[in-house]
Amino acid sequence: MADWQEITGGVTAPRGYQAAGITAGLKPSGLPDLALIWSDVEAIAAGVFTTSQVKAACVDYCRQRLQAKHSARAILCNAGQANAATGKQGVRDAEESAQLLATELNISPESILLASTGVIGQRIKIDALRSGIPKLVATLSPTGSDAAAGAIITTDLVTKSIALETTIGDRPVRIGGIAKGSGMIHPNMATMLAFVTCDAAVSSTLWQQMLSRAADRSFNSITVDGDTSTNDSLIALANGQSRTPAITEMGAEAEKLEAMLTAVCQHLAKAIARDGEGATCLIEVQVTGAHDELAARQIAKTIAGSSLVKSAIFGRDPNWGRIAAAAGRAGVPFEQDNLQIKLGDFLMLENGQPQPYDRAAASAYLQQVAADSSLAKDVIATNNSNDLSVDRNTIKAQRVDNPVIIAVRVGNANGSGKAWGCDLSYDYVKINAEYTT
Amino acid sequence: MADWQEITGGVTAPRGYQAAGITAGLKPSGLPDLALIWSDVEAIAAGVFTTSQVKAACVDYCRQRLQAKHSARAILCNAGQANAATGKQGVRDAEESAQLLATELNISPESILLASTGVIGQRIKIDALRSGIPKLVATLSPTGSDAAAGAIITTDLVTKSIALETTIGDRPVRIGGIAKGSGMIHPNMATMLAFVTCDAAVSSTLWQQMLSRAADRSFNSITVDGDTSTNDSLIALANGQSRTPAITEMGAEAEKLEAMLTAVCQHLAKAIARDGEGATCLIEVQVTGAHDELAARQIAKTIAGSSLVKSAIFGRDPNWGRIAAAAGRAGVPFEQDNLQIKLGDFLMLENGQPQPYDRAAASAYLQQVAADSSLAKDVIATNNSNDLSVDRNTIKAQRVDNPVIIAVRVGNANGSGKAWGCDLSYDYVKINAEYTT
Repeated sequence: MADWQEITGGVTAPRGYQAAGITAGLKPSGLPDLALIWSDVEAIAAGVFTTSQVKAACVDYCRQRLQAKHSARAILCNAGQANAATGKQGVRDAEESAQLLATELNISPESILLASTGVIGQRIKIDALRSGIPKLVATLSPTGSDAAAGAIITTDLVTKSIALETTIGDRPVRIGGIAKGSGMIHPNMATMLAFVTCDAAVSSTLWQQMLSRAADRSFNSITVDGDTSTNDSLIALANGQSRTPAITEMGAEAEKLEAMLTAVCQHLAKAIARDGEGATCLIEVQVTGAHDELAARQIAKTIAGSSLVKSAIFGRDPNWGRIAAAAGRAGVPFEQDNLQIKLGDFLMLENGQPQPYDRAAASAYLQQVAADSSLAKDVIATNNSNDLSVDRNTIKAQRVDNPVIIAVRVGNANGSGKAWGCDLSYDYVKINAEYTT
Repeated sequence: MADWQEITGGVTAPRGYQAAGITAGLKPSGLPDLALIWSDVEAIAAGVFTTSQVKAACVDYCRQRLQAKHSARAILCNAGQANAATGKQGVRDAEESAQLLATELNISPESILLASTGVIGQRIKIDALRSGIPKLVATLSPTGSDAAAGAIITTDLVTKSIALETTIGDRPVRIGGIAKGSGMIHPNMATMLAFVTCDAAVSSTLWQQMLSRAADRSFNSITVDGDTSTNDSLIALANGQSRTPAITEMGAEAEKLEAMLTAVCQHLAKAIARDGEGATCLIEVQVTGAHDELAARQIAKTIAGSSLVKSAIFGRDPNWGRIAAAAGRAGVPFEQDNLQIKLGDFLMLENGQPQPYDRAAASAYLQQVAADSSLAKDVIATNNSNDLSVDRNTIKAQRVDNPVIIAVRVGNANGSGKAWGCDLSYDYVKINAEYTT
């Protein structure tokens, strides 16, 4: 069905991009902590940022940059310190970071975008950054995506990366992406970051619109624990190096590009949800019959975010009553007499009436999905030991293609939407409580 | 400061009320499961109900009754089956319940209000109800509040009850209340029920307004896990038997009555939050400096409901970054440069700048609050064993007067508000996951 194919290469799969990731000494663990994505030419740039009132300095910085100029050549990302709730000094640190990189790259600081992830209330270790930047630039490579993907993660168990290719006007067009999620073994690390590269030629207005819609259908439709970070950032570059005709308005080619952009974002978003702390499986909630897509997504996200639903899935308990209750409190009006609930292939509620079903078989379905999508043993060992010295770049990305499916129909209208989450396990509490002072 | 004193008697403390609670055989455990509150005369009645789109039959029933007539004489509550998502049969069961009780009491069914709590998707065991109602009515007693309080709980660890007395026009006026919370050891039991009795004479319009405001400042300001039930109901009766002058408009006496009503509701709400599944302590979030009370409460509730904040408190981790992040995503605009955060007496953030503080001492503060407010050992034993045979009516209500205090100032305006929650422990996940099919 999909009009594209998966390829290798992550953010360096599209033409005209290089990337790098190094250990600059920002993380106490000694793991890679500084990443750079670089476009050979000035690229159209779009961004979607946290809606939190408490924002990191880099978020304010990027918002201002993108308001002034809709293009960029480089994205610098540090992991270790979030540079959030750091006051005026944090703003100065962000500006200095951009200036240092601009000097090294011999470009204007206006062409640099910034992202940070790590502990809230901590300044970037600016000395480590200063000495790291020349090394970072020196290691830029057309095959550097994995290095960059490994340097932006904090407590994620696995790196998240994807690249897709389609054709526009008989020429290949590619989109690549890397992301990090909210692995909060350490306090305050709750950031979702995603960087997308594309080699199509597209107008800045259209690119921003496409990205905003794709974000709503992906990153804004996942929930691990309902907490939104101070640093959440999604930045997408489009540098035109595919040499395809410029896309300046919606139409068949623009739709094709947006669909692929959405697929890239959804893959990364699902990978983040699957890597939720302590999670044993990915949950996909499909809502149909709502008045519009927004209403459907709102119901889907409420179900995916319900602690009771998440606990039940972890307990392999086909507890449809909790699904019904979560749907009901989503803030979207519907007639409960129209409600239908399915878990996998099991029909549990139809026209608001409970249906007979095989409880044991439904529980076995949940058990099977978790078993099929379980992480490799070394990942689980890492999780349990909190051992940050394991090189997570060697761990294969976990499967996101076989989630637990919760399907809810709320009426007969045409609005449909999806959301993704993960189950709630003992390990979530363990990970988030057992950081001791 | 408070203009009232605490008295004994619960919902039967105000003049002209009787109550009863019996074992009718609705709960599989054989614990009390049918409760009745009765006013000697027709009482002004007000109600606040779940906003969920998926509502129990009793919720629809009460809403319709109270729209048609603003008074009642009896509240019947069953525990065991929620009678939610039960379709048209559920409506018939609710109507039959009221009719059965009306016949026994020899009053009109229009004077009866209903509430249910228990498993979603299950009909009330109507045969057990039929044979129970005569026994229930026969045991009505002016000292029956504790029996009623014990018959409305499901998996609550303790009963929740309070009565306060003040004077209006030199005569004593009393308000009593009982409640149940969301102890979800069993699936789908997430209901918050509260019943309030008052012997003041007050107009129905004013009483409903007072109750709605009190609900916002109490039950709508607590959060255990963010899930709203299909059955949540707060019903308040005012029967005029104090023989005080009728209160028909706002003024000094109305304000006095509303303040006491709010205090009753807040006590019950805090007791519910403290009894949250697996909780080891109550958390009170105080927000000041917001544009209005609603904005302040919204920020407070977001912080109190944050899984990350709740996990940190359970881990005795004074993790102010998570508090800042939760405040930021509450959907209320504020300047982060104005943000101040205190945990107990420890100032952690001032004017958006991190402050030095004694981490070990702040952690010890959290540890101490939890130790001071810990439940009796037999309660914890009950919790760990899931042994429903323990008579929870013998367990004293746990302390709610020494919560962990999180104080957040977001600006210089005058809006202030509070919210209450509990910490998130391993036991929450255990309780909600380990119901196996």
